[in-house]
Amino acid sequence: MAVKAQVLYDFIAEAGNNELTVKEGETVTITNQHIGGGWIEAQNSRGEVGLVPEDYIEFGKPAPSFPGATSTAAPTPSVGNAASTDLAFFDSYAPASAPAHNQASNGNDPWSVWNADPSGGSSNNWASNPEGTQTGKGAAGDPWGSVSQGHPQAYQGPGAEDDEWDDEWDDVKSTGGYAESEAGEGGALQRGGPHASSMKISLNKFPGFSKSGPELYLLCKQVAKSKDKLAIYLGEVGPVWSYPDTQLDCVVADPKKGSKMYGLKSYIEYQITASTTNRPVNHRYKHFDWLYERLLDKFGSAIPIPSLPDKQVTGRFEEEFIKMRMERLQGWMSRMCRHPVISGSDVFQLFLTYKDEKDWKTGKRKAEKDETVGVMIFTTIEPEAPDLDPVEVEQKCEQFSRFTKAMDDGVKEILTVGNEHWKRCTGPLPKEYQRIGKAFQNLSSVFTSSGYQGESTLTDAMTAAGKTYEEIAQMVAEQPKKDLHFLMETNNEYKGLLGCFPDTIGVHKAAIDKVKEGDKLVATSKITPQDKVTMAKRVSTMSYTLQAEMNHFHSNRIYDYNRVMQLYLEEQVKFYETIAAKLRQAHSQFTTM
Amino acid sequence: MAVKAQVLYDFIAEAGNNELTVKEGETVTITNQHIGGGWIEAQNSRGEVGLVPEDYIEFGKPAPSFPGATSTAAPTPSVGNAASTDLAFFDSYAPASAPAHNQASNGNDPWSVWNADPSGGSSNNWASNPEGTQTGKGAAGDPWGSVSQGHPQAYQGPGAEDDEWDDEWDDVKSTGGYAESEAGEGGALQRGGPHASSMKISLNKFPGFSKSGPELYLLCKQVAKSKDKLAIYLGEVGPVWSYPDTQLDCVVADPKKGSKMYGLKSYIEYQITASTTNRPVNHRYKHFDWLYERLLDKFGSAIPIPSLPDKQVTGRFEEEFIKMRMERLQGWMSRMCRHPVISGSDVFQLFLTYKDEKDWKTGKRKAEKDETVGVMIFTTIEPEAPDLDPVEVEQKCEQFSRFTKAMDDGVKEILTVGNEHWKRCTGPLPKEYQRIGKAFQNLSSVFTSSGYQGESTLTDAMTAAGKTYEEIAQMVAEQPKKDLHFLMETNNEYKGLLGCFPDTIGVHKAAIDKVKEGDKLVATSKITPQDKVTMAKRVSTMSYTLQAEMNHFHSNRIYDYNRVMQLYLEEQVKFYETIAAKLRQAHSQFTTM
Repeated sequence: MAVKAQVLYDFIAEAGNNELTVKEGETVTITNQHIGGGWIEAQNSRGEVGLVPEDYIEFGKPAPSFPGATSTAAPTPSVGNAASTDLAFFDSYAPASAPAHNQASNGNDPWSVWNADPSGGSSNNWASNPEGTQTGKGAAGDPWGSVSQGHPQAYQGPGAEDDEWDDEWDDVKSTGGYAESEAGEGGALQRGGPHASSMKISLNKFPGFSKSGPELYLLCKQVAKSKDKLAIYLGEVGPVWSYPDTQLDCVVADPKKGSKMYGLKSYIEYQITASTTNRPVNHRYKHFDWLYERLLDKFGSAIPIPSLPDKQVTGRFEEEFIKMRMERLQGWMSRMCRHPVISGSDVFQLFLTYKDEKDWKTGKRKAEKDETVGVMIFTTIEPEAPDLDPVEVEQKCEQFSRFTKAMDDGVKEILTVGNEHWKRCTGPLPKEYQRIGKAFQNLSSVFTSSGYQGESTLTDAMTAAGKTYEEIAQMVAEQPKKDLHFLMETNNEYKGLLGCFPDTIGVHKAAIDKVKEGDKLVATSKITPQDKVTMAKRVSTMSYTLQAEMNHFHSNRIYDYNRVMQLYLEEQVKFYETIAAKLRQAHSQFTTM
Repeated sequence: MAVKAQVLYDFIAEAGNNELTVKEGETVTITNQHIGGGWIEAQNSRGEVGLVPEDYIEFGKPAPSFPGATSTAAPTPSVGNAASTDLAFFDSYAPASAPAHNQASNGNDPWSVWNADPSGGSSNNWASNPEGTQTGKGAAGDPWGSVSQGHPQAYQGPGAEDDEWDDEWDDVKSTGGYAESEAGEGGALQRGGPHASSMKISLNKFPGFSKSGPELYLLCKQVAKSKDKLAIYLGEVGPVWSYPDTQLDCVVADPKKGSKMYGLKSYIEYQITASTTNRPVNHRYKHFDWLYERLLDKFGSAIPIPSLPDKQVTGRFEEEFIKMRMERLQGWMSRMCRHPVISGSDVFQLFLTYKDEKDWKTGKRKAEKDETVGVMIFTTIEPEAPDLDPVEVEQKCEQFSRFTKAMDDGVKEILTVGNEHWKRCTGPLPKEYQRIGKAFQNLSSVFTSSGYQGESTLTDAMTAAGKTYEEIAQMVAEQPKKDLHFLMETNNEYKGLLGCFPDTIGVHKAAIDKVKEGDKLVATSKITPQDKVTMAKRVSTMSYTLQAEMNHFHSNRIYDYNRVMQLYLEEQVKFYETIAAKLRQAHSQFTTM
């Protein structure tokens, strides 16, 4: 039974995806309305059949209400605000979700907030954000980013939770390399697309008018059950998380191409095996992304959650890309496994060890309903140590912010220099060695043509020397993959991680500022004297958390840099030794005189 | 007694040379007329005293007759034409001097004459040279090149033979490096100033109208005394010169600054010690240049005489320049010493072993009066082998010209590539290693500021690694001087030598062409049948000479390239091994995990 429909907007098919290009006003025949995932199969007047987004089609019923013409328009994610208290002293209250996801990351220096007044602790340190950055989270699932041109996006609403969209068709186009940021400072590297952005919080410059999350926790009734409590101990290096006896680890491997919608859409599935179960589970990139969003919601205020590796639209089935993405997903997962709080969380355990599809879906739903998110995570933290003086809290916070800013600069410098070096090693340098090699060989050929006796010892040796330089050229070109790659990957990971600190530290700064306003707020009867005492105690808990997190960061950093520097130098030694050996061999072919 | 004089031309004093700037029409007072060397001391109206070229001054006697307003205008050198025969079949006869010295060398490809018809042997292969290139030889002694601006040059005539001008004040400005030729083909290197030019012969394209030297020899009465005879034997590799039992060698060393004209003019004197006498003699650059001119006059038609290293006006007392010039003079002298014909010649022996000033001057005068120059050198050569067939002579000639052209290309390619490599090794590459080193050290500093315990093992190691890369940067920058330098010098020497071949081979080509015309010339009664027989015999002698010379060239070439390639590779091995060792040391400072 042929159903006719009207095309509402132009849609350009993506090659190889069985899509159908349609024009606004065109009439098509619906051939399959039950494809799912927001698609329908349609046939145009020329008899061509293909998939079209169902929102682009009008069946005679009213056109759907589109959220607008921009790709970032999307509903705010459903985050738990159940614990919110109606705080009278906030002129206008914004929902205390996890720090919002700032899509406009390129050129937006997450550290700029520290530039205004690096010494002070007043809320003047924070850049105002009147427009708000709490947008675009939903857009991460937008399958149309790559074809969005002046028409509304086919949007997946909250009801599409079990929809199996391949969100690798994302709006992020990335080279997967270390491309330089055009807008960034002095050749600093920019990578990571939207996820590389920091988790900036909406804070207002003007004290008394700030609208943020910390107060939600500072004045709430603690509600966390004791089984969910996260302990912080005083270790040798200061406050530390409670680490499990055995460190969790996992292996991301065996990427496989899967397909859905009768083979019309394909995706890559990775096999993840946790060291605890030794039983592989399968996940697509979109599941990693889901996990990332959950972790960001739940822990982002206390723990910097590094971004996932880039999405990429083009070439997603190319071997190189898959290998690279897998390697980075492995790096991301390993880092998460190493974190005692994250690795022990229900949502992370679910991701690693779900038993079957039903288990996964139940767990997913539960995780999405988790109410202990945003600043409320601090209600679950119990430092086993005396309360800290607010002055000390502030000093620690400043110290961490200085350090992370400085390290961010240092890491970016290495990335910039490394990128330059990579370009030279894979571009002009091997070309030059090749030309040297060719020049020796050419001269050797000329010599061979001399007709003079006893020429061959020299010409053979010169040809060999020339070939050696050609080999060196190849070695030079291939070396970065063997050593510089890992140095870059580690520093890139740290760049991402450090990019999260301004927001994590920002939550603390905002809390400190609020505590400093305590007397004024009591005087104006906006809070009770008891509230003020509670706030001081809570900010102490936040500081222990930050310190534990910094100590976790430091210990990982020392481990990671020790490891990567060793690997780098080891490969560099091998590289130069191999060249020396090759040249020694070439040298030996000349007659000694 | 004050003598007044009129200034004829503007003269701009050279700084630091005690010269006086004077203006045309100005009246000066002569304070010392007996400075010598073309200079007088004069005082201007402001009381300033300094040296002025005497030719720029009019004492009341008629102004000297200037050779013209161009710096290349100079008399033809006095070369021996005594053996010339008035050959009726030459429409116009040019003096058969040694091949002329083409000053306009830049961009003037000495090989271009081979491009027209590489396979043929006709005189069409030769580019016409209607304007003649036999100019500029005298200009090499021009002390005014550096101030020549629209006025005649102070010229030293033939009578100034004992004049001790420091001809290092020459009109050649050179960097002493491997600067790229602007006019040359595809980045080929140009060095050597006027001396790097070939010794192009005036030859006319049109048979029958050619005006050249070979005929002078082809039809002359042989007059050389047997004591001066140069033997050629048939060796294993073909015709070879008669080599002395002990090879002559010499050491050029100990450059000393001398001065003359009451300390007003200074120069550098080198000490040359021949292996035969072990007694040092002193020579200035101008003496080397004199020797070069004599050797070119005497042997240039048969033996390619490589150019002397560049002259240089600026920085001539700088240590670097003196060292470089000495090194190149050493290379040039060693090459001359290795040549059995040159090393055994009177003029060369005089240069190396003169006993005292009187001995030197007597020898100089004798050498300058030598009449066995130009093509007449062939009258002294006696091949101890049967006459060659003219066809074979021509084939050999073509073979040599092809080989030398091909080698010239190969050598220039190495120079071009080497120059590029030199620039990279001394420019961007060490800068990059330095930046890598700095980046490691900076990150290490940041880490040190963390306040975290147990940081120092990592930071010490990272700082050490950073310093290692800074050391590598310096090594990279300094390496070319240790290896590439010698590769470049050797190839540069060969470039100069190969640049002489087109002319040397050209003399032979011209002779071959003349012999080919034999029948026609007999038919038109321009020569007798006996002359034709003589010509064939003589061209055979020329061919043996060329073959002996080529075999000498080949044997030296094999020796030189074997040596320089070994040296290059040896130093390269050391270089890479040292880097590997440094990195291994840096690696060892990281803790093993």
